Parts: sequence; structure tokens; C-alpha cells
Amino acid sequence: MRVLVLGGDGYLGWPTALYLSRRGHDVGVVDNFARRQYDLEMGVDSLVPIRSLQQRVRRWKDVSGLEVVPFVGDLVDASFVEQTLASFEPEAIVHFGEQRSAPYSMIDRAHAVYTQINNVTGTLNLLYAIAEQDPSIHLVKLGTMGEYGTPNIDIEEGFIEITYKGRTDVLPYPKQPGSFYHLSKVHDSHNIMFACRIWGIRATDLNQGIVYGQQTEETSLHPDLATRFDYDGVFGTVLNRFCVQAVAGHPLTVYGSGGQTRGMLDIRDTLACVELAVTNPADKGEYRVFNQFTESFSINQLAEMVASVAPGNVEVDHIEDPRVEKEEHYYRAAHTKLLDLGLVPHLLSDATIRSLLEVVERNRGRIDLEAIRPTVEWRRTASKLATAGLGASALPEPGEQAENAARAERA
Amino acid sequence: MRVLVLGGDGYLGWPTALYLSRRGHDVGVVDNFARRQYDLEMGVDSLVPIRSLQQRVRRWKDVSGLEVVPFVGDLVDASFVEQTLASFEPEAIVHFGEQRSAPYSMIDRAHAVYTQINNVTGTLNLLYAIAEQDPSIHLVKLGTMGEYGTPNIDIEEGFIEITYKGRTDVLPYPKQPGSFYHLSKVHDSHNIMFACRIWGIRATDLNQGIVYGQQTEETSLHPDLATRFDYDGVFGTVLNRFCVQAVAGHPLTVYGSGGQTRGMLDIRDTLACVELAVTNPADKGEYRVFNQFTESFSINQLAEMVASVAPGNVEVDHIEDPRVEKEEHYYRAAHTKLLDLGLVPHLLSDATIRSLLEVVERNRGRIDLEAIRPTVEWRRTASKLATAGLGASALPEPGEQAENAARAERA
Repeated sequence: MRVLVLGGDGYLGWPTALYLSRRGHDVGVVDNFARRQYDLEMGVDSLVPIRSLQQRVRRWKDVSGLEVVPFVGDLVDASFVEQTLASFEPEAIVHFGEQRSAPYSMIDRAHAVYTQINNVTGTLNLLYAIAEQDPSIHLVKLGTMGEYGTPNIDIEEGFIEITYKGRTDVLPYPKQPGSFYHLSKVHDSHNIMFACRIWGIRATDLNQGIVYGQQTEETSLHPDLATRFDYDGVFGTVLNRFCVQAVAGHPLTVYGSGGQTRGMLDIRDTLACVELAVTNPADKGEYRVFNQFTESFSINQLAEMVASVAPGNVEVDHIEDPRVEKEEHYYRAAHTKLLDLGLVPHLLSDATIRSLLEVVERNRGRIDLEAIRPTVEWRRTASKLATAGLGASALPEPGEQAENAARAERA
Repeated sequence: MRVLVLGGDGYLGWPTALYLSRRGHDVGVVDNFARRQYDLEMGVDSLVPIRSLQQRVRRWKDVSGLEVVPFVGDLVDASFVEQTLASFEPEAIVHFGEQRSAPYSMIDRAHAVYTQINNVTGTLNLLYAIAEQDPSIHLVKLGTMGEYGTPNIDIEEGFIEITYKGRTDVLPYPKQPGSFYHLSKVHDSHNIMFACRIWGIRATDLNQGIVYGQQTEETSLHPDLATRFDYDGVFGTVLNRFCVQAVAGHPLTVYGSGGQTRGMLDIRDTLACVELAVTNPADKGEYRVFNQFTESFSINQLAEMVASVAPGNVEVDHIEDPRVEKEEHYYRAAHTKLLDLGLVPHLLSDATIRSLLEVVERNRGRIDLEAIRPTVEWRRTASKLATAGLGASALPEPGEQAENAARAERA
């Protein structure tokens, strides 16, 4: 099939593009390099060195003989979106092209507004371009399990049958997202569902868990094909952070009590899930949701696993949770739809963690421990970046700014 | 109390400002005149002539001796929002300052994106300014009953207790909004609920029904204090449209079968509801939702009422529904919270309709029947405006554009 991968230069977009290419699909990738720009802004970098998109695409041609077509531009630019679709004529679009960090969206007002406007506008532009050019194009959109929050009832895949006061309906699952980023994904979900209803387009919303891992069959073929490995406080994810801390001899930093439980999956399963969605498209007018994760773990369980696999004596520290979230909660989320389509999960094992630790070990000279510290606090309206040399604790809490100003004036 | 009314030059914002002023509150109004700009864009006008904001404010001072302070600027401009709050120091903010027409949001991609970006960004800027300057400010935000859609179960006020597989939780009511405008209000609701949770600010979301009526005690004091009366296909509401059609001797145009049922309220009840919310603020950190309507009617019922009250023989026409909506459905929505606070509703009576017909009669020379025709069709991705002289039926349906282009190329 002809598949366009949006955000195809990113952590998951790039390995997805290679996977689909190797599996016989005609692949185009779209990117505006926003993700690389965030690194510059934060003063951090992928632990594993990565090549430019142009170098990656050339290396892939060398290694595999296969062509991946790059398109450089911004989804917020509607005419770029229209021209790219008209030129590539995709049958499916895999949409990773959004700002995807919760802490980044919580830095301050400007980053919150940027995240929501960027994500919502890009997706709206895409929906219109699909409806206008070819409503049969299947949109495969990356959402997140974080859209659901942590309700005290079972989480279903997108919709829930509610019986209430003697009547019954199947309704969109109620959402309780936990950051302005997660909120942007909820906004997208509502917009996409509506577009399917009014224009008869087809979409699959993949509510993905937290992804771990850095190597796939394709990226392992040559160092120039490597995808990024993020461990910093803003874009890094928890398992990566623990592995870097273990290798660096730093205690593993668990936020709060560590009972927070999340759905997770191996990077190789992300690729398989996306292809399963692409090759089994939604029906005309259908908006469907797959919960894309394979296992649930609490943060404490992850810390214990890393501590037991890593060599030497690894300590676990509990630090104050910078987020506003339940630290102990019920969590049971359905995730059968992708299994029904044939997904065979790579479960998290000691061997997986060992291979992650090896990736970190090989790049230990590039570790910047300063980048790991959480500097974005949900309870504050403005945070300083990790590398700006000013701890977030020096920043005002809500309302304090006004009190300080009033105090200064009275003095 | 010190109350800032955002969108205070609009249909409801202006009468609300006067009502609060007369009831002893210190009132500021904020507006960027976007609503007047939409009229210019559409080539339509309020049936009742209205004065500029500056003239209105001066006339109010003459008539009542009371000061209403105008602030001219755009909520999308964060520094304007910050400066206005810092200067006025409100205890409550009543937020009408959003693009509020469903058809306007459905004109085309640009109008959909504008509506969502304008509404979401303005509200985000406001939430940050409140959290930073004074989290005790009570945000009273206008939402819409249209956020809920038409589920097959009872609609509650914002939240619903769900018992599912033996467990129970109170969760946000699942939303099924019916236009990009309604979607923008759902996005806002989610953002506000989250801001209350993380920053401890207080908010009341007023999910308002369709408002009818044009005169209030305050606006009736002088013709220069009149608020707008919209009956055009884009900004007009159904009862206004029927009254104009009845006076003009035109059949009342019911969209589809007319079984669509909606919550409605008298403009005077809007003012009372807003003041009840303002004077009974939400708790610190509380996000609460009031369903702000007093009665439900089907479109057919409204047409019958107008036809029976209007003099002469009034015909009712069923035209194709330009929207994508259920034309027959279950509808039962809770609306007790404002009644519990003391609301005494003005119910829709023959006298109300008679007074609306009189307003129309007095301004019959200003009726532009051409403006009434629905020109925005939900199933199309681009509509021509009523006054552009080109019927929407000449525009392509989703996908047709691409087929036409392909056909042209082959020829």
C-alpha cells in the first residue's frame, strides 16, 4: 500500500517508515523537524546519535534498495498538507506528527498553547485534505492511553456501553487527560470522530501506551539508521530514564509513591500494530479506537526490574511527583482489538532490559545526568528548563506572582 | 462584585453587562468586535440596529448613572488578557468571548480552524492569567447544551455516575458535539476542568440552550441600548428565523423532519443564570457544570407555536437538513442546579412570541430574506456564503473535487 508517515523523522515515525518499507509498502515520510528543534531549545540530545533525515533515507536505499520519499514541511500549513497528499496519493496516513511530550506542554502558557494549536490544527488540516481529495484514505492517528486518565472503572477501547436509569447507549469513553498535551489528543479524538461522521472518512485512533526500546530489525541494519533514545526530564520516558540512571550509578528516581500504573509496549510492537491497522482499514465512515499496549506496570515494578537486572547495587529514590496524578489507583484497560488482528507481543523481559542497558552502556560518554531532573511542575504555571541553571522551585506557584508584586509595591 | 464580561459587545454579553451593572456590580466589558466583523464578512446585519460599544456605554451612563468600563482587545493576545485582568482586578469573569455559530465554523477549513484556535487559545490565555494573578477569580464560562449531542440516555449536568462491570465512578459526561464550533466548547470544557484540578482555580461551565428574545429590562430603557437580533442562516437562531419568516409572509423553514429537540431559554433567564453563578461561586479547585435552559422543544413545536400566534395564514416548509444530526431522538436533560440556586424561569408563551413578532414588525424594512437561506452544509467541506450569489449545491461533495480534477486531466 501507499503509506505516508507523518512525523517520520521522530522516535517512532522513522522505525515505522523503515518497517513498512521493508514489508513491501510504498512509503513517504513527512516532517518539519520540530522534534530536533525541541532538543536545541532544551539543550539536550538523543543518547544514541542520529543522522539527518536525508542521510537516513540515502542509507536506507543503500542497505535495502528501497526508496522512502521525504517531504519537509509543517502540517499547520494547509497548502503544504494539500500538496503533499495530492503528490503522494496515499492509501493510508500514519499520523505521528504532533508534539508528544506532557512535560513540554506544561512548561508554561506559550508551550501549552503551542502544543494544542499545533496538534489540533495539523489534524484538522489533514481531515479536510482527506475529505476533499479522497475520503477513502485511511487515517491511522496516534493517540495515547493517557487520554483516559485513571478512572475507577475498567477502561474500554474508545467507547463504553452505559446503562443509566433504565436506558442504554454506546458512548465515547469519558476522558480525564492529565496534561495539556494529553488534552490535545482528546481534542483530536473528538474532531476525528466528528469528521468520520459527517464526511464518511475512515480513521483508526491508536491509543498508545508508553513505548520502550530503541532497536528494531530495520534500524539495526546500520548505525546511520538508528532512531533516537530520549532520557531527559522533558522528552524521556520512564524505562529509558531508569536504564540511564542505573548505568550512571545514580539512584532510580521514582515520582511519588510509584503506584502509578500505565500500559506499556515494546517499540517493535508499535510497528506491528501500525501495520495491522493499515492493512485492516476502518470501514467508510468508521471511527475506531484500538488501545495499543501489551502489559501494564507500576512505576515501582519497572524500577525493581531495572534494579534487579542492572549489574551492581542500584538504589531507588522516591522524589516529589512533579505531576498532578493519583499515585495509587485502580487500573484495568482493555487491549484485545490488536491481538484479535494478529499482534504477537514482545513482552518486557530481563533480556529486553539488558539490551536497553547495553544501548546505554555503548553511549555512556554521551550521558548528561543534569538533563534527567524533572524541571516542569504541573502545579506551577511557568517552569525553567533543566539547562537554564535555575531550579523550578525558585518559580512562583499560582497566585504567588501577584502576591509578590503586591508585596513589592507596598514595600 | 467586580465582574468582567468577555464578549460584552455581543448579543448576550451586552445585556448581561447592563443587568449586572444595574444589580450593583462593578462591570467591565471586553470585546474585539469579532461579531460585528462576521456581519461584514457575511454581508448581513442585526435586524435591530445597534450602537457602537462606546456609544452604548455612554448611553448607559446617561440613563442609569452607572459606569461600565470597556476594554478593546483580543483574548488570543495573552498580554492583553494579562493587562486587562491586572488593571480591572475582577472577582468573577463571565466568558462569552468566543465564536459561537455552528454554521460559521462549518463554512470551510479556514473557518473551522479559526473557530477552534480562537476559542481554545482565548480560554487557555484566560486560565493562565487567572492562575498567575489570582486563582480565587471565579471563571463563569459559556458552554452549550450542544456539547452533549443526543445520546439515548438521560443527559446530566456535566458528570455522570457510571456503574460498569461491578465498579462505580463519577466521570465527565461523554460528549458528542455536532459541529467544529460545538467541538471547540468541548475542548474548552476539558481544558478548564484540568486547570481547576492542577491550579486550584474555580470555574462554572454554563451549558446553555438556545436563547430567544431580544429585550431585557435594561436594554428597553433606551433604543441605543438595544442588543442584536440575528435571523440569518449563519448566526440566527431558529425562533428568530421563524418570526422573521412569519412577518415577511414566507413559509417557516424547518430543517428535515423537525423532530430535533433542544433545550431553550429566554434571554432574561440567561442574565439571571449568569448572576446566580457569579454570586454563588464554585469552590476553590471546583469545576462545576450547570445546564442552562428552562424547557425543551422540538423544531416542529416551535414552528407550530409561531404559526398559531402570528397573524394570517403561516405555512410550514420542511427543507433538507443542512446539518448532520438525528432528526428524531430521545431527549431528556437535567437542569435543576440553577433552579436550586433560585432561578425563576420565563417560560415560552404566546406573549413572548407576540413580543418577538412585534420587534420584527417594527424593523420589517430591514429584513433581508435572502440572508435566511441555509448555505452551509455539514456534508460539504466548503460552502459559499449566502450573499456570494452561488448556491452551496454547486460546490463539490467530499472527494468529488479530486474526481473532477482527475476527469479534467483525462479529458
